[in-house]
Amino acid sequence: MIKSRAAVAFGPGEPLQILEVDVEPPKAGEVLVRIVASGVCHTDAFTLSGDDPEGVFPAILGHEGGGIVEAVGEGVTSLQVGDHVIPLYTAECRTCKFCTSGKTNLCQSVRETQGKGLMPDGTTRFSYKGEPIYHYMGTSTFSEYTVVAEVSLAKVPKEAPLEKICLLGCGVTTGIGAVLNTAKVEAGATVAIFGLGGIGLAAIIGAKMAQASRIIVIDINPDKFAIAKDLGATDFVNPKEHDKPIQEVIIEMTDGGVDYSFECVGNVDLMRSALECCHKGWGESVIIGVAGAGQEISTRPFQLVTGRVWRGSAFGGVKGRTELPGYVAKAQSGEIPLDTFITHTMGLEEINTAFELMHQGKSIRSVIHF
Amino acid sequence: MIKSRAAVAFGPGEPLQILEVDVEPPKAGEVLVRIVASGVCHTDAFTLSGDDPEGVFPAILGHEGGGIVEAVGEGVTSLQVGDHVIPLYTAECRTCKFCTSGKTNLCQSVRETQGKGLMPDGTTRFSYKGEPIYHYMGTSTFSEYTVVAEVSLAKVPKEAPLEKICLLGCGVTTGIGAVLNTAKVEAGATVAIFGLGGIGLAAIIGAKMAQASRIIVIDINPDKFAIAKDLGATDFVNPKEHDKPIQEVIIEMTDGGVDYSFECVGNVDLMRSALECCHKGWGESVIIGVAGAGQEISTRPFQLVTGRVWRGSAFGGVKGRTELPGYVAKAQSGEIPLDTFITHTMGLEEINTAFELMHQGKSIRSVIHF
Repeated sequence: MIKSRAAVAFGPGEPLQILEVDVEPPKAGEVLVRIVASGVCHTDAFTLSGDDPEGVFPAILGHEGGGIVEAVGEGVTSLQVGDHVIPLYTAECRTCKFCTSGKTNLCQSVRETQGKGLMPDGTTRFSYKGEPIYHYMGTSTFSEYTVVAEVSLAKVPKEAPLEKICLLGCGVTTGIGAVLNTAKVEAGATVAIFGLGGIGLAAIIGAKMAQASRIIVIDINPDKFAIAKDLGATDFVNPKEHDKPIQEVIIEMTDGGVDYSFECVGNVDLMRSALECCHKGWGESVIIGVAGAGQEISTRPFQLVTGRVWRGSAFGGVKGRTELPGYVAKAQSGEIPLDTFITHTMGLEEINTAFELMHQGKSIRSVIHF
Repeated sequence: MIKSRAAVAFGPGEPLQILEVDVEPPKAGEVLVRIVASGVCHTDAFTLSGDDPEGVFPAILGHEGGGIVEAVGEGVTSLQVGDHVIPLYTAECRTCKFCTSGKTNLCQSVRETQGKGLMPDGTTRFSYKGEPIYHYMGTSTFSEYTVVAEVSLAKVPKEAPLEKICLLGCGVTTGIGAVLNTAKVEAGATVAIFGLGGIGLAAIIGAKMAQASRIIVIDINPDKFAIAKDLGATDFVNPKEHDKPIQEVIIEMTDGGVDYSFECVGNVDLMRSALECCHKGWGESVIIGVAGAGQEISTRPFQLVTGRVWRGSAFGGVKGRTELPGYVAKAQSGEIPLDTFITHTMGLEEINTAFELMHQGKSIRSVIHF
């Protein structure tokens, strides 16, 4: 049993408490990871708010981390002490029906227990004063030490800075992957991106990589447009400046609609706008944002019968263990400019400030340095 | 000006009236066709009911016909007198943005006027007692003579019987094409087909052609199951025999859901069931049925984020002038058993009986012989 500094969420809406928790050694197929840095993502805030139907408390949140292997449990063969890793909330076991389908990244090997805040054996490795503390998304990166399933760890080169590439554990990879893997945007295509948080900005990078001819970005906060332009956006739409529905504005701008659209907010009305701004005959819309519990999307079926396609993307369709090393290489070469996303860094003790900055729209990503 | 026997729809909900109407000669780019036979489709009934927002009266309905070219207008080069043709409600001009996209069959060359019941020059060729009668879907096959745009006519071999291959003008091609062109079902895939009207039965043929491993059909009328089995269906589900939502029944039958589903009814609740019975990670659902005006489809976005895809299909994604000859060849070889669909034949004078049989669920297709 080791001690670990961690930010613990004791209940919905409460500030995180920085405490020393107990961490059990890794069991079979598990790995003890020393977290070096972790981004703070909207999904952490979503769960902390209490709106996440899978949310359990008390828990250690965090799912956008980078760390170093400290110990391995029985039977772990793909990792050894000292390896640098990015924890994955979408595992990749390479043997389940999903991994072997060739059609999806949604490995289900640890999904059931992960959704309950437990390790695959149905128990937790964290405790405080003898009471269990739940895991979160199979990662719990808001702890100096965390235990993660072997299948949920991507090994990355040691020369890449963990305090930057930790962002590849969620938002940046999700946005880029949704463009390249899920939508498969082709050169010359027109693209609309709804929402300029971390995922939307990353989607711009993906669209630029795909050589999209137009990258239209939509946000009600025009302060985001400068950075979007730096990343490659070509057209900027603020819905507050238009009286008509935003899908009509985009259809007019593009002579009939865009080839691909991406919803990066989690707003079901925007999801509809994103679908309906797609071009008749072939436009495809990808939902990336996570909507509140119980919310539904709607449209007239005619929108689909006339050729539009509605999809979704989780972790950008990326198989983490296989593909993340490639993303790290692109970050190292500068093709994925991670520095653009990191607006704030701070110690674990200031993590509640990171949540405040996010709620105020003042940060893209705060990265916690342990 | 020639005289033509025609079934005229004077108003919503009224029986068709068999009258002698006047038909003007074809103008530039138009063709006069003598209709030999025409199927009666649910879409005709939908428009006749008054629920079709594009419906205009008085009109000559009918869009599933086969005929012979009687005269050609100025500039018509691809057809000559005596050619056998199938009128197309989805034109194929081969030059518009849609035709040249390589991504859709939804040619827009005559779409705008067609939706208003007019020929491309904005006028009608039909009249009765000097008053104009509107066209319908660019085809108006419930008339002995009709005028159709050249781009809306597929030339077919003279040896194929028009009173059978007329069904390739709508339902049969739509069902098969949705499976092969829109969904691109691959060998070994599992398929669910909702609704066993003409389109649903044709989708079974398509799934069989694609070598699907399981073809699950869903209908509340079990009388349809025998013919479905003859065509290749492997599993039969009557929602009336189950207490739980039908998507749950199918998910249990298939260890997680089907690879592809098809909604062939036009019921928005069934469209949701069809999406949600698809397998997590990769299942794709295709909407073929036409819903009533103003109706909307809904689901939780999580359904899409976890890998399901929602599509639609119009005329099975088939480019009529290019692809219908191949469908005719498959009908001639017996691979598309058109006889299975033709449960009734009758003269034009009995066309109201054809609508009654359809409403009573007693026919698959009635074919009018002129």
